[in-house]
Amino acid sequence: MSYDAETVREILDKVRAEGREALTAPEGKRVCDAYGIPTPGEGLAATADEAVALAEKIGFPVVMKIVSPDILHKTEAGGVLVGVADADGARSGYDQIIANAKNYKADAQIDGVQVQQMVGGGQEVIIGATTDPTFGKVVAFGLGGVLVEVLKDVTFRLAPVSQDEALSMLDGIAAAEVLKGARGADPVDADTLADVLRRVSELVTDFPEISEFDLNPVFASKDGAVAADVRIILQTGPVTPREQIPQEEILRVMTKLMNPAAVAVIGASDQEGKIGNSVMKNLINGGYQGGIHPINPKADEIMGKKAYASVKDIPGDVDVAVFAIPAKFVPAALEECGDKGIPAAVLIPSGFAETGNHELQDEIVEIARRRGIRMLGPNIYGYYYTPQNLCATFCTPYDVKGGVALTSQSGGIGMAILGFARSTKMGVSAIVGLGNKSDVDEDDLLTYFEQDDNTNVMAMHLEDLKDGRAFVGAAKRMTKKKPVIVLKAGRTDMGARAASSHTGALAGNDKVYDDILKQAGVIRAPGLNEMLEYARGVPLLPTPQGENVVIITGAGGSGVLLSDAVVAEGLSLMDIPSDLDEAFRKFIPPFGAAGNPIDITGGEPPSTYEATIRLGLEDPRIHALILGYWHTIVTPPMVFAELTARVVEEARAKGIDKPVVASLAGDVEVERACEYLYDRRIVAYPYTTEKPVAVLGAKYRWARAAGLLG
Amino acid sequence: MSYDAETVREILDKVRAEGREALTAPEGKRVCDAYGIPTPGEGLAATADEAVALAEKIGFPVVMKIVSPDILHKTEAGGVLVGVADADGARSGYDQIIANAKNYKADAQIDGVQVQQMVGGGQEVIIGATTDPTFGKVVAFGLGGVLVEVLKDVTFRLAPVSQDEALSMLDGIAAAEVLKGARGADPVDADTLADVLRRVSELVTDFPEISEFDLNPVFASKDGAVAADVRIILQTGPVTPREQIPQEEILRVMTKLMNPAAVAVIGASDQEGKIGNSVMKNLINGGYQGGIHPINPKADEIMGKKAYASVKDIPGDVDVAVFAIPAKFVPAALEECGDKGIPAAVLIPSGFAETGNHELQDEIVEIARRRGIRMLGPNIYGYYYTPQNLCATFCTPYDVKGGVALTSQSGGIGMAILGFARSTKMGVSAIVGLGNKSDVDEDDLLTYFEQDDNTNVMAMHLEDLKDGRAFVGAAKRMTKKKPVIVLKAGRTDMGARAASSHTGALAGNDKVYDDILKQAGVIRAPGLNEMLEYARGVPLLPTPQGENVVIITGAGGSGVLLSDAVVAEGLSLMDIPSDLDEAFRKFIPPFGAAGNPIDITGGEPPSTYEATIRLGLEDPRIHALILGYWHTIVTPPMVFAELTARVVEEARAKGIDKPVVASLAGDVEVERACEYLYDRRIVAYPYTTEKPVAVLGAKYRWARAAGLLG
Repeated sequence: MSYDAETVREILDKVRAEGREALTAPEGKRVCDAYGIPTPGEGLAATADEAVALAEKIGFPVVMKIVSPDILHKTEAGGVLVGVADADGARSGYDQIIANAKNYKADAQIDGVQVQQMVGGGQEVIIGATTDPTFGKVVAFGLGGVLVEVLKDVTFRLAPVSQDEALSMLDGIAAAEVLKGARGADPVDADTLADVLRRVSELVTDFPEISEFDLNPVFASKDGAVAADVRIILQTGPVTPREQIPQEEILRVMTKLMNPAAVAVIGASDQEGKIGNSVMKNLINGGYQGGIHPINPKADEIMGKKAYASVKDIPGDVDVAVFAIPAKFVPAALEECGDKGIPAAVLIPSGFAETGNHELQDEIVEIARRRGIRMLGPNIYGYYYTPQNLCATFCTPYDVKGGVALTSQSGGIGMAILGFARSTKMGVSAIVGLGNKSDVDEDDLLTYFEQDDNTNVMAMHLEDLKDGRAFVGAAKRMTKKKPVIVLKAGRTDMGARAASSHTGALAGNDKVYDDILKQAGVIRAPGLNEMLEYARGVPLLPTPQGENVVIITGAGGSGVLLSDAVVAEGLSLMDIPSDLDEAFRKFIPPFGAAGNPIDITGGEPPSTYEATIRLGLEDPRIHALILGYWHTIVTPPMVFAELTARVVEEARAKGIDKPVVASLAGDVEVERACEYLYDRRIVAYPYTTEKPVAVLGAKYRWARAAGLLG
Repeated sequence: MSYDAETVREILDKVRAEGREALTAPEGKRVCDAYGIPTPGEGLAATADEAVALAEKIGFPVVMKIVSPDILHKTEAGGVLVGVADADGARSGYDQIIANAKNYKADAQIDGVQVQQMVGGGQEVIIGATTDPTFGKVVAFGLGGVLVEVLKDVTFRLAPVSQDEALSMLDGIAAAEVLKGARGADPVDADTLADVLRRVSELVTDFPEISEFDLNPVFASKDGAVAADVRIILQTGPVTPREQIPQEEILRVMTKLMNPAAVAVIGASDQEGKIGNSVMKNLINGGYQGGIHPINPKADEIMGKKAYASVKDIPGDVDVAVFAIPAKFVPAALEECGDKGIPAAVLIPSGFAETGNHELQDEIVEIARRRGIRMLGPNIYGYYYTPQNLCATFCTPYDVKGGVALTSQSGGIGMAILGFARSTKMGVSAIVGLGNKSDVDEDDLLTYFEQDDNTNVMAMHLEDLKDGRAFVGAAKRMTKKKPVIVLKAGRTDMGARAASSHTGALAGNDKVYDDILKQAGVIRAPGLNEMLEYARGVPLLPTPQGENVVIITGAGGSGVLLSDAVVAEGLSLMDIPSDLDEAFRKFIPPFGAAGNPIDITGGEPPSTYEATIRLGLEDPRIHALILGYWHTIVTPPMVFAELTARVVEEARAKGIDKPVVASLAGDVEVERACEYLYDRRIVAYPYTTEKPVAVLGAKYRWARAAGLLG
């Protein structure tokens, strides 16, 4: 793309030099021209002949306007003509405007008549860009008028966008159908519109001092797109790029944090109820095999381990220092960690920014940066990394190993994660508290878990992002390989932001997070329980190979509710080909319904479930199965569970591994049956038709974003 | 309201007599005039003077059009003038149109010039009515154009509507703000618009043969509303009102069904695994104290009860006959029930309409109607009514008595209800299978449970309604006293309906159910699990006295998620007055956040929870409490549960009973704490911030609809 960046630089420098924030309309137009952003053709005519020539070049119809520094109210002066349709009109129009102007104000200085392309028609859309406090430059797209202003039907992407990402924005609004030619209108030229979005996104990326940018409206039609009005606002202060730690450096320290050769516990204690006591116990009882060094100047030995007065006294290297001392003692101890060359500090203490003590937090951040220490916390419960049997926390040990890494910004949510994990026996690789995120944050952890072979999915509770752009970068890399689940809290708490542009005002809502997390390929969980259930179920399901979902159900009623859930989760019920339909019909009673859901009817023996599930697994056109079980005397819950697990296992042995989820309707025995199935990688729930489908939906959202559905 | 119904009757009869379905535009206009539905003023002028007089009466601007049977293309003939602004224009316009017409076709018969009010401006809206297969006459309202056609932003009500219901429709669309004057426009005249809706709803109610009715567009402005186009479609066949059983008669038989003096089991058996065996066992083991009469021609005694060959042989009255015989034997046995005078039959057998055997179902419906028998089913698991220890089902007995009556159309869902109820120890008054609903349906049960003192909430799974209007009538009565929860399955299954009107086409979606259930005051559950959780929790919570909800939380993270849930559920976080804020602050650390959520911070002892919860209960300005608990060593889960239950109990003893719900974040001990709280009418859940707020939200939705919030 060859843009005329020099011209833009010159204009912006001039505006900033003059102490202005907003560009004038002609300046805005020149910026647009430099980046190939289409604005109405226009020119200044000094004679009627020139007016005709200009109008012919621009194309009729045109608008003609008097240009005079002495005439402010052009319309009142008879100085505006709209809809000038041909050369004759342009010629007589020129003469008439000049005459009217002289008549209005005899001594007015007249510079000429502006001839401008008359825009309008087609579909009004808004294209804009703003500077989000979390994500930096984002582009926005919406339809003009009521849709965007009342219904907030607008979509955002991190800038810059590719042409494909820009095209996805056109589909990203609720009223997308309008652009495709609803109500008998012509469809708009999507490629051109996307091209404008891409150019705007590149302009604001190249010139970070452009804080807000509005094209409102843009008239989009089948023939192209023209921005009728341009508004550009510049940032007043200096524009400094955010500092980025190199990826290898992040990885080096995170690897030590998760796999330390030795851990020091600053504030270790023999006294029950003390945090330093709990941390010691959990490290020892958790089975951590590295060095454990209690730091306590008043003790010689704690829990059978030699105690030291300072980390500096420990012989040999230490990779992690866990702080279990009051906040006010942290700075001095952190300096000692620096002396010792400890790369990672885990700051359990509270009493920093979260209690209003920003000075103390600033102080430790400064020390850590100066001494080259990466800090987790402060104000956290600590962290778990099960591959190393590492429970550096004041909670209780957790020992069900598995592939899920979980993080939480809040301690309370961390405890909910621990309780849920224990209750459901969820296999976990890590649980990490992030607390105040004074240093280490989600993108550091994403960078580690992306390449950690012990982890195959990551689930995060977060309230904000320190650097949304770094997060998206790390998440985009990870989601190509492994699912990332995010519970973004505070979705309704952002309030309206004061902004001088339209796009800026629109950006003040949760939609920015929603769209950009999706752009990063992240699975967003609507609530805490969903985050936990996704974390538990998504890694157990194999990646589906296509969109064809089939429901096999013993209860017609479950079939209807499961279909509702399929639609709600954006999944596709397979349109069953007739040969497959016939094949299913062989196994079910004549009054059963083939099609999809396949209703095998309620009174059927285990063999019917078995035959239909086997067929569903073995036919390569089917990509995922949803089972609806109905508790009967003929096929009791555990019989169903065992046969299902067996049939699935047989298929797996043949190399067929499809996602299978199940909803079990029945008396309390179905609870044990669900556990049995879950243990065998069949995501099963009692008393709900929604949850199994929601987990399958989450898996699909990830697989689609990762480009794995083919 | 005085409508000119005679004129409408005359027009419709004429149209039907002529074998037409659609009214002509003038006919439509006359129908509108008769019901005071505003259409553009118009008239036919035979002279220029008449044209001027007409235009002055109608009001400028006007549209003028040639009226000639010989000129079809009026515009081409120069026979149309729009925007005629004054008397001079009308006069010269008349002459010009006549001249143009003569010029266009010299021998054309000219009837005159139509002078019509020029409509436009303001906001385009659509008002319509259609005949829904479930609900009968419904009125529809939406904004014109993209909003209604692409975004389906339309709302429905059962006709006729009151003025208040009509006004609620204006607020019932997503883009409601547009009508209130968004984007600097004037607000529309809501009363007039609602009045039009009301008139349309009364017209279609008075004339049921009007199957579809469209006013599209209606131009609504601050000065009123005018329908620019009217379209009326009539039903072709005969119009017959639905039969209604009188309420007292329904109640009489339902009372016998639920409280039978004696039950006959047709097909009772000694043989394990037979349905007639399970039913007998459950009746006996469930503890039912009335007469139990096994019917089996091959046995003398079954389970210690004398067996009879036919119900006719039973000495004394029998109120309920439970059928546990194959479908083909049902008709004959039903006739015998008729001979015996048994008022209620419970048809467990399948093999009727659900397997395609509509003839057999029609046959039993005919017999039942003829013999005065009300039938439950067929194709059901039976029913439970715990106040009578009555378990007339082939499932297992259920004995936790309580105030929840549940019904399900599907057997599978019925089993899920049973399992969930048993697992959560939900107090139940009844569980009723409705199956094919050949006779008894939801409105019969509503009529019973409305007045049943053993029942304080009803929860229903349904896939369709036989008679939506009867359902709404019964639900409207019940919801004034007791909450009604509905899980409507098949929300995405309705597909598009072929309809010749705009409104008819729009009605083919789940929105009709959604709006009309809301109009009836019903709490709609989004899924099966929510229906079950609402059924369990809603009756335990007292009715809130106002909208002020306060969150008290030990975990800031939970507070944020609980706030999100509050907004999602349409609840209102109370704006805490400064004196109350100060009162809370006395109990919490200086760095804790008062306001709302009230964040008491994580490390606090039981006394802090206790003091803040007590204050929340005792201050009369607060109407409901949401608690966020964080598991710590200082305040372990059961300590929190016990103190909360105690403080709530103390308040109740003083006559203060507010809804209190809780989200517990912590290790697995929180599960027991939640059970403890639930047992004490505090709706508590572990590992979720959404569920407790959803149950509170359901309670509020009911209380608002029932007019109990004041």
